[in-house]
Amino acid sequence: MKAAVLFNTGEPLEIINGIQMPALTRGQVQVKLLYSGLCHSQLMEVQGGRGEDKYLPHLLGHEGVGIVETIGEGVTKVSPGDKVVIGWIKGDGLDAPGGKYPHEDYLINSGSATTLCEKTIVAENRLVTLPDDFPEKLAVLLGCALPTGLGLVFNELQPLPNSTLAVFGLGGIGMSALIAAKLGQPRMLIAVDVTEEKLAMAKKLGATHTINALEQDPVAAIQSLTEGQGVEYSIEASGQTRTIEQAFESVKDGGGQCIFASHPRDDERISLEPHAFHRGKSIRGSWGGASKPDVDIPKFIALYNEGKLELDDLITRTYPLEDVNIALDDLHNKKIIRALIEI
Amino acid sequence: MKAAVLFNTGEPLEIINGIQMPALTRGQVQVKLLYSGLCHSQLMEVQGGRGEDKYLPHLLGHEGVGIVETIGEGVTKVSPGDKVVIGWIKGDGLDAPGGKYPHEDYLINSGSATTLCEKTIVAENRLVTLPDDFPEKLAVLLGCALPTGLGLVFNELQPLPNSTLAVFGLGGIGMSALIAAKLGQPRMLIAVDVTEEKLAMAKKLGATHTINALEQDPVAAIQSLTEGQGVEYSIEASGQTRTIEQAFESVKDGGGQCIFASHPRDDERISLEPHAFHRGKSIRGSWGGASKPDVDIPKFIALYNEGKLELDDLITRTYPLEDVNIALDDLHNKKIIRALIEI
Repeated sequence: MKAAVLFNTGEPLEIINGIQMPALTRGQVQVKLLYSGLCHSQLMEVQGGRGEDKYLPHLLGHEGVGIVETIGEGVTKVSPGDKVVIGWIKGDGLDAPGGKYPHEDYLINSGSATTLCEKTIVAENRLVTLPDDFPEKLAVLLGCALPTGLGLVFNELQPLPNSTLAVFGLGGIGMSALIAAKLGQPRMLIAVDVTEEKLAMAKKLGATHTINALEQDPVAAIQSLTEGQGVEYSIEASGQTRTIEQAFESVKDGGGQCIFASHPRDDERISLEPHAFHRGKSIRGSWGGASKPDVDIPKFIALYNEGKLELDDLITRTYPLEDVNIALDDLHNKKIIRALIEI
Repeated sequence: MKAAVLFNTGEPLEIINGIQMPALTRGQVQVKLLYSGLCHSQLMEVQGGRGEDKYLPHLLGHEGVGIVETIGEGVTKVSPGDKVVIGWIKGDGLDAPGGKYPHEDYLINSGSATTLCEKTIVAENRLVTLPDDFPEKLAVLLGCALPTGLGLVFNELQPLPNSTLAVFGLGGIGMSALIAAKLGQPRMLIAVDVTEEKLAMAKKLGATHTINALEQDPVAAIQSLTEGQGVEYSIEASGQTRTIEQAFESVKDGGGQCIFASHPRDDERISLEPHAFHRGKSIRGSWGGASKPDVDIPKFIALYNEGKLELDDLITRTYPLEDVNIALDDLHNKKIIRALIEI
């Protein structure tokens, strides 16, 4: 099979053909990929932002959709022929290591959910069955962006109606968080990004105000929009420490809540004003939107089918697997919301 | 009357005699001081750690005990002759500005609770009546250190029994937090400070382990004591950004909670690992231990009277008002837990 392989951090992924599939062990499932997503986490892994990669050569990708081919011992959740979502967030079922794929005279390593390849070996607990009528391309996002973005609003932040919110970073997570936040009838929904196209889309999806952070200081702009108070809630998904800090600085004293999804480089720190905590601001990090895939993915699918989640515009561009490095560049340069890789 | 006055930040307080008392306005109460405490906040104010002081010349101090002399219009909570605790945390009753005290050809400013003076004008909502049989010296601490230190355990952290806790900084707040934490039957109660005398006292008061942060890295030492897990709860009251960071670094992934009381210099920031939030650590700041003085001070007094709070050793040294600068130096040099100023 063919896959995009990371041989050295800081270098492009290499497309390798003829990789062999190892035999399945307990709890593993072999899936033929249809589509994979591309997340800021892969950028970090490729660029070396996660420090030394001890698993080189390494298969990447952690959200995808595909068809189950074979199941390992003990697997009961899915059967061959099932269409499934692959994601990194643990759900029901057996946990298992990823596959070790033989190629020439070496093995290629992978985690428990890997998607930038034609076929993959995934742990049972990283799979959720997908209804046939849900759009396949969109389903990819059910592996990471949607459970995180929707979950951090529905499961974690749970903003009160008539609230003021700001969303920093309109990638797959930020844009889906904005869509979820809009459902909660906010009084003010401020979208912050550096790309006019994304800001225009946020406006279309219900943002009441947009701020281009290349043109204005977003903290000052939010203070100005809220009469010096700050917003009640901020959501951050830009991938950078400075935007986490800005999201914290933008919430109001006496109860303002900031939640961030960004995983910046491992060696970076966020710098916060301690007195802001005393004045009643809070900050927390989201781990996959606190989503339980087996409970939440069917819930999100139902909401979409009821026409309540306008998700169709989230995938801005589809790339063949061979162009994965172009897609990574476009993600790095913030040209796209979420890249889709067609396998 | 006589008072310790801040004329210029960065300079010692000056003892000034013959200051006049202004007439009371609505909500104000005139109190003759018996004792005042000294808190890290006064150190910050004197050293200029709060930025430019717009109220110079300025009367300081925010915890004390005294006898009500006269009451202003609208005051119903206290009567002349009542023994009262003065504190900075707002409680029931009228809010009011502090006095502006005439002296020679200028006015000396003060906040709504001021205690480093023979007589003071205090807002009704900064006073709580003190029972006659409670020790007067200890009662001073009911204005700040005890509601903060006890409150951040009883009201905010509320640790589960059999937990692991670490307390950073054994001043008035940290030591009373340790006393409160001990009541909750912790499995491990680690005291961290830079002074052997305080660590010895913490041991006497129930700490299971002590760490001298001048001799060991406290984060590594706590990791070692907890088999690499970190503690479930950490309490920070050292007054420094680095100890806030250490307290956060010392709690365990997946639910570890850090709470800090320190108000470092206004221009300082804390630097935190963003991924630690994703891994389930949390941090918050305490505003006076979330104490409601009128509810909590009687509760703390009752606990003390039942013999459940070993508070008697918290006041390590008493200074006359004339020696207030020596007391500030001793506090700065961490020689004392809480200084008491005898008026």
